[in-house]
Amino acid sequence: MATTKTGEPLDRATLDTILRRRLFYTPSFEIYGGVSGLYDYGPPGCALQANLIDLWRKHFVLEEDMLEVDCTMLTPHEVLKTSGHVDKFSDFMCKDPKTGEIFRADHLVEEVLEARLKGDKEARGLEAGKVEETAEEIKGAEDKKKRKKKVKDIKVVKLSDEKVQEYEEILAKIDNYDGDQLGELILKHEIHNPVTGGPLNPPIAFNLMFGTSIGPSTNMPGFLRPETAQGQFLNFSKLLEFNNLRMPFASASIGKSFRNEISPRQGLLRVREFLMAEIEHFVDPENKAHPNFKDVEHIKLKFLPKDVQEQGKTELIEKTVGEAVQSGMVDNQTLGYFLARIALFLEKIGIDQNKIRFRQHMANEMAHYATDCWDAELQTSYGWIECVGCADRSAYDLTVHAKKTNTDLNVVETLAEPKRYEAWEAEIDKKKFGPKFKKDAKAVEEALLALDQTQLEKFAEELKAGSFKINVPSLGEVELTPELLTITKQQKIEHTRSYVPNVIEPSFGIGRILYALMEHSFWTRPEDALRGVLSFPPVVAPTKALIVPLSSNPVFNPLIAELMKKMRQAGISNRVDASSATIGKRYARNDELGTPFGVTVDFQSVKDNTVTLRDRDTMKQVRGTIDEVVGAIKNVVDGVETWDDIKGRLKVFEGQELEE
Amino acid sequence: MATTKTGEPLDRATLDTILRRRLFYTPSFEIYGGVSGLYDYGPPGCALQANLIDLWRKHFVLEEDMLEVDCTMLTPHEVLKTSGHVDKFSDFMCKDPKTGEIFRADHLVEEVLEARLKGDKEARGLEAGKVEETAEEIKGAEDKKKRKKKVKDIKVVKLSDEKVQEYEEILAKIDNYDGDQLGELILKHEIHNPVTGGPLNPPIAFNLMFGTSIGPSTNMPGFLRPETAQGQFLNFSKLLEFNNLRMPFASASIGKSFRNEISPRQGLLRVREFLMAEIEHFVDPENKAHPNFKDVEHIKLKFLPKDVQEQGKTELIEKTVGEAVQSGMVDNQTLGYFLARIALFLEKIGIDQNKIRFRQHMANEMAHYATDCWDAELQTSYGWIECVGCADRSAYDLTVHAKKTNTDLNVVETLAEPKRYEAWEAEIDKKKFGPKFKKDAKAVEEALLALDQTQLEKFAEELKAGSFKINVPSLGEVELTPELLTITKQQKIEHTRSYVPNVIEPSFGIGRILYALMEHSFWTRPEDALRGVLSFPPVVAPTKALIVPLSSNPVFNPLIAELMKKMRQAGISNRVDASSATIGKRYARNDELGTPFGVTVDFQSVKDNTVTLRDRDTMKQVRGTIDEVVGAIKNVVDGVETWDDIKGRLKVFEGQELEE
Repeated sequence: MATTKTGEPLDRATLDTILRRRLFYTPSFEIYGGVSGLYDYGPPGCALQANLIDLWRKHFVLEEDMLEVDCTMLTPHEVLKTSGHVDKFSDFMCKDPKTGEIFRADHLVEEVLEARLKGDKEARGLEAGKVEETAEEIKGAEDKKKRKKKVKDIKVVKLSDEKVQEYEEILAKIDNYDGDQLGELILKHEIHNPVTGGPLNPPIAFNLMFGTSIGPSTNMPGFLRPETAQGQFLNFSKLLEFNNLRMPFASASIGKSFRNEISPRQGLLRVREFLMAEIEHFVDPENKAHPNFKDVEHIKLKFLPKDVQEQGKTELIEKTVGEAVQSGMVDNQTLGYFLARIALFLEKIGIDQNKIRFRQHMANEMAHYATDCWDAELQTSYGWIECVGCADRSAYDLTVHAKKTNTDLNVVETLAEPKRYEAWEAEIDKKKFGPKFKKDAKAVEEALLALDQTQLEKFAEELKAGSFKINVPSLGEVELTPELLTITKQQKIEHTRSYVPNVIEPSFGIGRILYALMEHSFWTRPEDALRGVLSFPPVVAPTKALIVPLSSNPVFNPLIAELMKKMRQAGISNRVDASSATIGKRYARNDELGTPFGVTVDFQSVKDNTVTLRDRDTMKQVRGTIDEVVGAIKNVVDGVETWDDIKGRLKVFEGQELEE
Repeated sequence: MATTKTGEPLDRATLDTILRRRLFYTPSFEIYGGVSGLYDYGPPGCALQANLIDLWRKHFVLEEDMLEVDCTMLTPHEVLKTSGHVDKFSDFMCKDPKTGEIFRADHLVEEVLEARLKGDKEARGLEAGKVEETAEEIKGAEDKKKRKKKVKDIKVVKLSDEKVQEYEEILAKIDNYDGDQLGELILKHEIHNPVTGGPLNPPIAFNLMFGTSIGPSTNMPGFLRPETAQGQFLNFSKLLEFNNLRMPFASASIGKSFRNEISPRQGLLRVREFLMAEIEHFVDPENKAHPNFKDVEHIKLKFLPKDVQEQGKTELIEKTVGEAVQSGMVDNQTLGYFLARIALFLEKIGIDQNKIRFRQHMANEMAHYATDCWDAELQTSYGWIECVGCADRSAYDLTVHAKKTNTDLNVVETLAEPKRYEAWEAEIDKKKFGPKFKKDAKAVEEALLALDQTQLEKFAEELKAGSFKINVPSLGEVELTPELLTITKQQKIEHTRSYVPNVIEPSFGIGRILYALMEHSFWTRPEDALRGVLSFPPVVAPTKALIVPLSSNPVFNPLIAELMKKMRQAGISNRVDASSATIGKRYARNDELGTPFGVTVDFQSVKDNTVTLRDRDTMKQVRGTIDEVVGAIKNVVDGVETWDDIKGRLKVFEGQELEE
């Protein structure tokens, strides 16, 4: 069950009302009726997002010397055809031919079977709350994140025990069915439009990319990118050169991607346009060790590996990243390194450490390009939500693009020790070879070059005995004799090694992280359940300080100006609330905005240049000079001091006039 | 003529080679052959862009308390139909029916006539360079920014004097022709495909928005936004409420917009996907004064007002913003305030102050929504380029959206003094009115409500005399008599005033500014024209410091680690170049990357913890402890000290081993 920051049950409706009222986010085009799956961020949401991005850039790009790129969202068809997205980036949908309604097939099966199981439990006399929890336990957690279209009028019908077991098994592996299998389930279990009961057409694949056309003629179809990754892959050679040919290295990109969801209904968690921050770490496939692994191997994470899930269980395994890699549960150091770095980032921005788990993808759940994948999932009122994916995409993307464009995307490395070995080689005598085969000479030569070591060794023997025959495409069998060529064992030395790098990809859904952060930061004052607080850490809080004059008396203006100027110089974003509301009301408003500090200017301030500093979370206040207070805020935002430090060294203030 | 930072002629090809080699930018999808008008930013371009955005946010959003929003790029058809973009956001194009080539009509007329004028000048014996300059002077400057498709084989043909004058006049107002007029010009002046000489189809309008379809059914057509503005307008009411109903206020947005250019050929200046930073300042149409105008009124700008241009001239008028507003040349304080703030921003990021002008749009050049518009134009090798637009969009957008959606987007202000006045009012006697007109009663009443004061006064007189007649739509003339209604003069009091705000919109094309900045920052060492330098101000430079160990000797590693850590703590982005190239070569590479500082670690460093600090622009060096040097860099980046200050207080260093 989702909880607030203080461990109380989270009422999502209350939080949502606050988030919309305070304009953290709002439906896009609302005066036009809105478009599902599209949201705008208002000022606090926008500042929160900018602060997350700023921290992300510092934590990953700057701290790890990544090569950040900014590639276009418009992408030609050919690129996404090669990457596999044109063929495979789809969900299955069923249309109700009568009403025209469209359902996402897997979600539909899920919601109908869940409703039937619920009806069964009720029929068996179990109470609803209990029922839901049980159903969730059975299904595993990964599908809880999908909000269901409400099935109206759950029928209280008892099912046979076999039926219950069958439904439960289907739900446990709902992510593994393809379109045909979903169609069979829909037929077999008589799944219809859950509202009207009308029959549905069989599932068809719907590609989730937004199509468009680039340029004035229609000969260049394109898409809005479904991920930032492809742009990074296509620039691989340039980035490698920029990096002075050193491997491994990572590129990174922050930008919008798009996914034309069939019927998005889950607020900020399932949207059609979203901000991603993606890293592509290019690494030698034969050496996925990470030079800084020792810095993180002690970090403990909660893992949900695939074998546990495949047994239908969800127990988390807590161990250090070092142990996880050593035991082989996490495939390699680089993957483990990033899982730890992801956890550190999430901790830094204020995600509740008890609400993070790392879930491994099951084999048939994985994206088409991935060979291994761990998701950082965050617990919310929608269940466990995938917020960061960390996939090993192997050499898939670079390989397909290199092949399609006939471009060399290999890394060539000078070997520390040259590699010496013996190999059979055929050497033709051009003077005789050419005249003998004439226009076919090239074809015969190519057939010889295509021979492997075993064949060469065998033919060397045969040649000693007089001749051998090889099969030449389009020519048939050709006999070769010693005057035409020799086959001998040669000493070989290789000074370089060539390989296509593998890619480890940590991919962050910023909007999902932002939403989870809002849930994890939310709580209400115990003395008043209507007073919501968003306790963002100061470093990510949209605004760091609220400046509150006691009243609109102009005598306070010079002090407000001084505070604003000094805060700006110190890089502290601030807002002034000079409205006529009571101080208490103004602070309550800013608690909802997540502003960690309030600075009150009162008549005492005019006399001695001191102001009060209020801590959002404790509502305690201290008093100090403007310089002391601005310095204190800066220290807390920079992580140099905590509120407790401040409270220890500045004078605690308990003025009557500021009572809330 | 475009010049380098040091005033030498700018060789664009040299600069472009450096920018691509250093991966400031690169054509998108290059291994797939590229797509014209799409570019990716590599690491230095990306960092430069991020720094520009960061400064922009500080300079505008934070310093002026703007409400930043992040709205979706996907936009439903209906919104852009209302805004006028579906009907009017187009360029005209001509198709060559034989080759299939597509030409932008205005660019085509321009390039062909220019080529003919050039041929004429050559025939008259004027030399080529001179010719080009003259042509540019004649045309005015706004069209120089459009790069022409090269007209092959300029024919040296003398034209009649009348023809020359006619061509020059056409070119002077090339931005003012509509599609039909362009078609007439093409016919009259026999303009054909400049390469093949083949005839062209008449111009047709091509809408510049990228279309797509939102959701799985095709019933919601949409576009990628052509500007961020519409999202801000649609959120106006919510933002006003967020701002506690206070006016004026500004919203701001930073994000990508899209323009499906017909045939983009001008590098970063004309692209299909671009980053914008837009401000929408909502203001009372009756009071466009700006509270902070006094802070900027002394700032001198170079203006090119519309009347000067309409005389075919391009002389700039230099005056203070205060004078410009007072004289009425710039319409109002808010517009003037933003022009000054734009200039300050451009100065801060390093734009050459001698290469900025503010050009007013001519009447028929303006966007369909604007009532006045000034562009900040930056001089580049492509001519004067519009980089920031500053338009007064009046109440256009809010009005059309309010009307279309039947939403109230008015501001209601409580009047300081209630407004008292007398007014004629008709009051009907419902008891008699209803029975008399029955189902038509409502129509008659509405006709009465639609009467203005003059009509009411006249009818009051007639009513005294017995009756009057009014015209009721769909009913015709209706006679009204005193028992049905009275018309009297009433005392009225109004406590509020309601208005649709006007919008002043400063709109920044970040990519264009970035490109101009690269040109303005570029120069080559006088001693070696091949050694390019990009002298970005430290605050925007992609990387602030390069750390250069003398060699790959591991003895330097602890010092490098210490430098990196201390720089990171001080927020100084840095890179290590431990390659085996000479120190001179490594510095030369970083001069091209625009890195302002180099820090060299040598054997002396190992002994006494001192390092050398090199200034990019002067190549001079000083020596100090690691803390001193990191502190010095931080001070210069923060604008607290200059290089001269540093050189004055740290020991000047002239070590042999670092010679370049």
